Amino acid sequence: MNEIMIDLQGGAKAPLYEKIYRHLKHEICSGRISEGEKLPSTRLLAKQLTVSRSTVEMAYEQLLAEGYILSEACRGFFVCDIRGLYQLNQRETKNRAVKQEKAEVLKEVSVDFSPDAVDTAHFPYNIWRKIYRGVLAEDREELLLPGDGQGDYGLRCVIADYLHQARGVNCTPSELIIGAGNEYLELILAQILGGGKKVLMDDPTYLQAYHTFCNLGYEVWTAPVIKEETAVLNIRTGKPDIVYVMPSHQFPLGTVMTFKRRLELLNWASEEESRFLIEDDHDSEYRYRGKPIPSLQSIDQSGSVIYMGTFSKSIAPSLRISYMVLPERLMEVYRKKCGFYSTTVPRIQQEVLREFMKGGHFGRHLNRMRAVYKSKHDFIIGELRKKAWVAEIGGDHAGLHLPVRIASGINESALCKQALEAGVRVVGISQHYIEPVQKQPEPVLLLGYGKPDEEEIKRGLNILDDILKYQL
Amino acid sequence: MNEIMIDLQGGAKAPLYEKIYRHLKHEICSGRISEGEKLPSTRLLAKQLTVSRSTVEMAYEQLLAEGYILSEACRGFFVCDIRGLYQLNQRETKNRAVKQEKAEVLKEVSVDFSPDAVDTAHFPYNIWRKIYRGVLAEDREELLLPGDGQGDYGLRCVIADYLHQARGVNCTPSELIIGAGNEYLELILAQILGGGKKVLMDDPTYLQAYHTFCNLGYEVWTAPVIKEETAVLNIRTGKPDIVYVMPSHQFPLGTVMTFKRRLELLNWASEEESRFLIEDDHDSEYRYRGKPIPSLQSIDQSGSVIYMGTFSKSIAPSLRISYMVLPERLMEVYRKKCGFYSTTVPRIQQEVLREFMKGGHFGRHLNRMRAVYKSKHDFIIGELRKKAWVAEIGGDHAGLHLPVRIASGINESALCKQALEAGVRVVGISQHYIEPVQKQPEPVLLLGYGKPDEEEIKRGLNILDDILKYQL
Repeated sequence: MNEIMIDLQGGAKAPLYEKIYRHLKHEICSGRISEGEKLPSTRLLAKQLTVSRSTVEMAYEQLLAEGYILSEACRGFFVCDIRGLYQLNQRETKNRAVKQEKAEVLKEVSVDFSPDAVDTAHFPYNIWRKIYRGVLAEDREELLLPGDGQGDYGLRCVIADYLHQARGVNCTPSELIIGAGNEYLELILAQILGGGKKVLMDDPTYLQAYHTFCNLGYEVWTAPVIKEETAVLNIRTGKPDIVYVMPSHQFPLGTVMTFKRRLELLNWASEEESRFLIEDDHDSEYRYRGKPIPSLQSIDQSGSVIYMGTFSKSIAPSLRISYMVLPERLMEVYRKKCGFYSTTVPRIQQEVLREFMKGGHFGRHLNRMRAVYKSKHDFIIGELRKKAWVAEIGGDHAGLHLPVRIASGINESALCKQALEAGVRVVGISQHYIEPVQKQPEPVLLLGYGKPDEEEIKRGLNILDDILKYQL
Repeated sequence: MNEIMIDLQGGAKAPLYEKIYRHLKHEICSGRISEGEKLPSTRLLAKQLTVSRSTVEMAYEQLLAEGYILSEACRGFFVCDIRGLYQLNQRETKNRAVKQEKAEVLKEVSVDFSPDAVDTAHFPYNIWRKIYRGVLAEDREELLLPGDGQGDYGLRCVIADYLHQARGVNCTPSELIIGAGNEYLELILAQILGGGKKVLMDDPTYLQAYHTFCNLGYEVWTAPVIKEETAVLNIRTGKPDIVYVMPSHQFPLGTVMTFKRRLELLNWASEEESRFLIEDDHDSEYRYRGKPIPSLQSIDQSGSVIYMGTFSKSIAPSLRISYMVLPERLMEVYRKKCGFYSTTVPRIQQEVLREFMKGGHFGRHLNRMRAVYKSKHDFIIGELRKKAWVAEIGGDHAGLHLPVRIASGINESALCKQALEAGVRVVGISQHYIEPVQKQPEPVLLLGYGKPDEEEIKRGLNILDDILKYQL
């Protein structure tokens, strides 16, 4: 085929080469130029269309790149087999049609008692802004480049120091891994520990951790929590490889593990190289009486404790920075198997946090928040004591929520649903159980006091009054 | 035991309750007060020490919380069994000793030809700063709270639009998952696809992806890449479940997959529900001739393509934002199995990126960088053409590096080592092979031109001159 007519004047505004490319593509797709057919040489077509030869070459190159034609040395350009191409346009249009979408709208909540909600009113916006500006102002090239997969060394240093001072954690910066959230670190941990492990967890517990272990193909075995103790029962009979615990402040029960129990766990773990304890120290920053209790890791003699922590509660959940301290023998496996992973935390974010901690702002922020949360803690307890429907207030002067047993036969989820309809978000304990609770005599609410202020707490509890007053 | 003498005057400055707590703890640890022994009542001890009763209660509470003593209703406080505690101090001091550490120092590099390095000189610091400041200035509470696990809807909208316009990708915001890097998204993907899959990859390829699949227990099977084509050979005989490809620009070979090959892959995948193609579109933004080639996903009829992309090359590697487009049937599994995962990208970062894209800054940045990289691309090719040691220049007018075959018998890694000693970082292709290359006649360097400017390119190549001139 040596004659091609292309209207280069009409049609949409586009470069000449693109018009030629589009025309030929259309001819090929419509089958008007069929497979194997030879296209005119660039020189010839350029002459026919009175355009420069390079224009035609551009068009042919595009067709070559997209595989519509192929070039044979000394012979010229030939049309390829383009089975299936005609469907392309259909699909495209179909999808453009469905492309429009609405965002999910969230329910209007006036008082939020979620146990994982934090106080945002006291976030140190000004300091945070100032540090950000400073970090960005320096046009620091290295902050754009890939960083250390474990997290930047400088940040690991300040975190290691903090953990040692605040939690008695024994670790060097090189034993610390920084990642975007606990679940991510658990995904890494599973690759270090290897597959097919048996994990023992409390029940109720943090379901995110439970679901993560399940997704990783771990066999998760649960021990019902007895009374106010995060008792991990008969480890001996269950023979787990890993025990997941929250000694400083069990979620959701809010209890503190006794020293005796801690030693039992450590002794069990120390008996075999393959046994590990995962200590999730999620909100240990907030303890309102006496000194904080040293971490399990700090009294571990055999290097069996995997220590995890996060800045979600101490700074903000949206920060997405968690950390994990590994025993040396696991660090070696990490370096071998996971050393190639890039960090999951933006370096600018890491640098801002480092300066926030190094400048002493973090310490001041924690003290401030401890005071804020303590007064909320004392306030909500004071208010709850006035309520006839409060049977029992749990918790241990720590964390950001109180488990409250309700003196009523009302169904727990019904209660939460009614409350939400009245604009109050409350969470029941039942939804934190792995094994569905058979018959719970009385509902237990996890009243988070992190987010609401005193006025909101009062209002929220009064709304619960209205719901419960006829239920007693 | 009813008599306890405590020196509340001397010793370190500390609250009274803490001095009492410390003294009793020490007595218990040293065995001077032994297991089972009864402590004096708070009233009695307060009287003895002439301190307020609440002070003693504070001290006892701390001892209770840490498990040194237990309280028995109506009987009083008794010392617990504290086996193993004495070792605590040893361990602590030991660790304090080793706690000091040095950061690894990096080798001094004057010219960096790494294929994954990007140009940082043209990063839009000012705009980025401005947007950051704006986002932070508003004290937007919601940016501190946990966001959508899939990534914020607003950001998914602009990314979906961008992907549709720039890459022809057919997706709605709800089919898009944002995460902190490709490897993280692959960890999620594996949980969606399930374990024990067989993956087929090119060889050479992106080793990070290879290692990730291996860590996940996937059987990875490789197809040697033939000539300049990212040929995925005999899929039929190998019977993989998943084929991992980089059609727009294969790494490290820099080739573009022909349309014919794309259709072959799509046809293969369409034959069975369980078959998937992972399209890693890592640096498709940078193409210097003709129009960009539509993505594999854009011509997928059967919903078999899992599309992955990143902002590492288009903005900065340290940003840690990647995205994944899943076929609807995989999205359903994601929602069921992985819906509970929190996002791994900080919300402030997500909001800044959203405004960067929405404001048109991203488009402008890309055009600017395309011009910057094109001129570097043309410049380095011009320089390479002058070199006697250049046997062949690969690549396809795209991406940020050129595979360059060296006309010399010199060993590839030896060449890279010598270059590094002379201050030039160059990467050989061999280290990107999964199956170690048996005998490579001539070295192939992956010359990245992203980072160095023209002067550095010149200098770097001249240093290679000096190393190679006697090796021809």
